[in-house]
Amino acid sequence: MRMVDIITKKRDGGVLTNEEIDFFIDGYVEGRIPDYQVSALLMAIVFKGMTNKEIVHLTDRMEHSGDVMDLSDIPGKKVDKHSTGGVGDKTSLALGPMVAACGAVVAKMSGRGLGHTGGTLDKLESIPGLNVFMEEKKFKEILKSNGVAIAGQTGTLVPADKKLYALRDVTGTVESIPLIASSVMSKKLASGSDCILLDVKFGNGAFMKTREDAKKLAKIMCAIGNSLNRDTRAVLTSMDQPLGFAVGNALEVKEAIDTLHGHGPKDFQDLCYQSGAIMLEQAGIAKDEEEGLKMLHKVVEDGSAFEKFRQMVIAQGGDVSYIDHPEKFPLSKHIIEVKASKPGYVKHIVALEIGESAMRLGAGRETFDDVIDMSAGIVLRKKVGDKVAKGDVLCVVHTNKDDYESILKDIENSFTIVDGFVDYPPTVHDYIKG
Amino acid sequence: MRMVDIITKKRDGGVLTNEEIDFFIDGYVEGRIPDYQVSALLMAIVFKGMTNKEIVHLTDRMEHSGDVMDLSDIPGKKVDKHSTGGVGDKTSLALGPMVAACGAVVAKMSGRGLGHTGGTLDKLESIPGLNVFMEEKKFKEILKSNGVAIAGQTGTLVPADKKLYALRDVTGTVESIPLIASSVMSKKLASGSDCILLDVKFGNGAFMKTREDAKKLAKIMCAIGNSLNRDTRAVLTSMDQPLGFAVGNALEVKEAIDTLHGHGPKDFQDLCYQSGAIMLEQAGIAKDEEEGLKMLHKVVEDGSAFEKFRQMVIAQGGDVSYIDHPEKFPLSKHIIEVKASKPGYVKHIVALEIGESAMRLGAGRETFDDVIDMSAGIVLRKKVGDKVAKGDVLCVVHTNKDDYESILKDIENSFTIVDGFVDYPPTVHDYIKG
Repeated sequence: MRMVDIITKKRDGGVLTNEEIDFFIDGYVEGRIPDYQVSALLMAIVFKGMTNKEIVHLTDRMEHSGDVMDLSDIPGKKVDKHSTGGVGDKTSLALGPMVAACGAVVAKMSGRGLGHTGGTLDKLESIPGLNVFMEEKKFKEILKSNGVAIAGQTGTLVPADKKLYALRDVTGTVESIPLIASSVMSKKLASGSDCILLDVKFGNGAFMKTREDAKKLAKIMCAIGNSLNRDTRAVLTSMDQPLGFAVGNALEVKEAIDTLHGHGPKDFQDLCYQSGAIMLEQAGIAKDEEEGLKMLHKVVEDGSAFEKFRQMVIAQGGDVSYIDHPEKFPLSKHIIEVKASKPGYVKHIVALEIGESAMRLGAGRETFDDVIDMSAGIVLRKKVGDKVAKGDVLCVVHTNKDDYESILKDIENSFTIVDGFVDYPPTVHDYIKG
Repeated sequence: MRMVDIITKKRDGGVLTNEEIDFFIDGYVEGRIPDYQVSALLMAIVFKGMTNKEIVHLTDRMEHSGDVMDLSDIPGKKVDKHSTGGVGDKTSLALGPMVAACGAVVAKMSGRGLGHTGGTLDKLESIPGLNVFMEEKKFKEILKSNGVAIAGQTGTLVPADKKLYALRDVTGTVESIPLIASSVMSKKLASGSDCILLDVKFGNGAFMKTREDAKKLAKIMCAIGNSLNRDTRAVLTSMDQPLGFAVGNALEVKEAIDTLHGHGPKDFQDLCYQSGAIMLEQAGIAKDEEEGLKMLHKVVEDGSAFEKFRQMVIAQGGDVSYIDHPEKFPLSKHIIEVKASKPGYVKHIVALEIGESAMRLGAGRETFDDVIDMSAGIVLRKKVGDKVAKGDVLCVVHTNKDDYESILKDIENSFTIVDGFVDYPPTVHDYIKG
């Protein structure tokens, strides 16, 4: 078998056999196939796509390119949740403890962020002392005792994805549904959970710009997971405006704490409840979503969801006094209000613009070497559908940078205020049950 | 400027600016841009193509990526001829001396062959002592004294094409008209001739399988050459059956000698005359093709074309006694006749099959390390349109390999004999004047 023949086959629209996929993945991981052949194949896949059968096999082979986490000695069904990412997406921080408080085991493997704000790991690290990297043994101990842990993926899991993703990033081959689907799902599968809930976001602040593409991606990812014997479902959610109010690492942790106390932003709270209810049904803890919802409301109201989060922070070495007293999180030097220049209804808040502004304020990385300013970010006061008077505060900007003026302008411009009434948009647009 | 942005721009169907093309070519030649980014861009070009303006600039930049041959101190217009390659294509060997005998300066840079038979350089090297690699000074001396020289391209010409071609070969990105056109034309332009005649072949034994693709390629190459101030024209010729009778290195040299003496195969002779007439018009030696044809017939009849070939062989160090006494070329151990199993007319001779059989007989290289057997090959006795009786010899096979039986079968099968009358096909199908 020759790699060049595999490339030309795909270039000409052919369907790769399992053996050809194995040859390519194994050869790449083992260093026999050079980057330049792989990038040519990836570009051919961008144009010609892959069949579901090809994608399932590709994912399976990627999953098994390294170690696979074995959670079978932890009692009960393990559930995982993955978001394709968006602005202000702190869902795992609140949702994980809520679902765990209802009795599910939430084994969450997360990544760092590149772009507008940090990833889940970066957000967690704004809690002093908290450690996201741990041995498999420790991760499983926390899961056994507390039912929820959020950790960084260890280096030995899915090496194929690590190599492929690094290559895709510099060769213009990120934007391909088969490649995105196999990348996400190989990591989820290798993390060892029995059930997976995917939150596939669409809109200007998301990776998928249209609902159609998001649905296509969600369906393929569900097909992969279910083909490989995991109960995999997906919700389609909008990322046209940021999720919740807070965008920025410590700011988002504080919002997650608020939400665990039962007073988070409505859209964020809705997303946590609706996703959590599905996860509880997947785990076999609730008989249906309705029952799941009731359980979630109960664990928020009685404080046990918050307590799960506290215990997770303690187990992972974090200073829990910050969780109990969120006012301890250091504030930025500059805290500036952005006000409405006219009255009306908020029609749009361009999520991508808010996200990129947050990054420029210090909340995100442009390159992997950048250091995140945990205190920086933006806290919205108004969301799409809200009525505003002239001079109302639209959002509050937090930064330690002194040259924030031009950023303020961009933030203001990302709000569109219109005269006519604007409906509140739904949070979850679609639910794909597998 | 970032290479990844250039890749995504082309992937999304954008038109690259001159600056982007320069960034990519210069960066690649100088080693700043890695193979894996270039191969991704090449694959995007395979799918999205390039505008004529992009192709012209790409070619220009490739041409100037290294040294450029300066032939301006040689009096008169310098003419070059390039064939996209086919089975039995020994045109340069006969055409160069014919045109030079009429007074034109033919400065021909050639390559080696990979595939069915050797390239022009390999064929020439079947003449003992003949040297195809020489200093620029020596090449120009021969041109000045004799008017024709055929040499290998020196290593310092068009390094961009060398790197790109090696990469394309292993990444499934050879089959792209913009990339083929820029590769061919950058080399032709760097070789320093004023006029270029392209022989673009189509059919199963050629690179371009259809006449339409060949015409598209020819038109783009003419546009490149003329945009960059060279009189560039093209003939479209069929490669559905081998050109002439002989396929194989020394066998083809002998056929070129026959042709210079005026008794070559009709299709090959026609091609030399028709191409030569155009080149003489391009060089300003003949006022039109008709006059050019007359001049060519004259130099063949009076022996001056053959004498030019003799002088070229002598100037390049070859043993001219082989040219004067072609029976001196060593023959293969096995010389086997392939006979018609039924009477009729020859309808097809699958050029690719004949070419690959010749390679298996020893006449070509599968990899650059293979050594060519100069004596091996196939000499046709019948061509498309010929009437055959049962038992007539279709072709004669020359080989030093003992296990030729299965090859004979394939050779026989490449002939299709039908009952009904078959017309002789034309040699030149189209002429693109620029």
